[in-house]
Amino acid sequence: MTRASGAVSEIVDYHLVPRNPMNFDPAIEIRFGSGGLVPAIVQDSATAKVLMLAYVNRESLEKMMETGETWFWSRSRQALWHKGETSGNTQRIVSISIDCDSDALLIEVEPRGPACHTGQTSCFFQPLK
Amino acid sequence: MTRASGAVSEIVDYHLVPRNPMNFDPAIEIRFGSGGLVPAIVQDSATAKVLMLAYVNRESLEKMMETGETWFWSRSRQALWHKGETSGNTQRIVSISIDCDSDALLIEVEPRGPACHTGQTSCFFQPLK
Repeated sequence: MTRASGAVSEIVDYHLVPRNPMNFDPAIEIRFGSGGLVPAIVQDSATAKVLMLAYVNRESLEKMMETGETWFWSRSRQALWHKGETSGNTQRIVSISIDCDSDALLIEVEPRGPACHTGQTSCFFQPLK
Repeated sequence: MTRASGAVSEIVDYHLVPRNPMNFDPAIEIRFGSGGLVPAIVQDSATAKVLMLAYVNRESLEKMMETGETWFWSRSRQALWHKGETSGNTQRIVSISIDCDSDALLIEVEPRGPACHTGQTSCFFQPLK
């Protein structure tokens, strides 16, 4: 993986905002891709189980910084999505990491309930093989 | 997350091929998105560490089924990519799961070396906060 990618449409120098309670590193550029999104892996910080994959845009990242809970961009609804808003199964953010080419996030959380809308702990419950 | 998504361009009913050594479930539809790709999370099956995120197309999935090692589609090089081909740090596949809306994969592996081209075990070594 290199920093040059045809699929990346925008490089954003993401600046710290004063209200930020999470000490976001202002030097890190996030390489938002198609639609201004990056994929984010959500992992349970206690069990290390991978819970879900969702997409983050600048606005959802700002909401995460403000609230300390996970927010995503719903591609199906084309709307900002506070995880657990209706189910109550919010996720408290423990840490956020970015990968070596700055186009994917890993969010470690303490989940307040199942991640999946089916009631499963993780969205990855179907074996492909 | 629902099965209806504007970002999904293709639904593929992925059929078992006779040479398949991994007993791929032919009933599962993979919802390949933009560019015929789905994101795949690679996790160490022993340590549960999330190692990397990469993209899979039909051809790379077939190569995984054939060889039992990870293959991806490199978006920067626009080429099929056998992980570890040059570094020797291949990843033996233990399991593949698909998420509830069938547009992301979780691949558990036994890595033969660091996942990251920087020499780090995981590509997610930079804290964002």
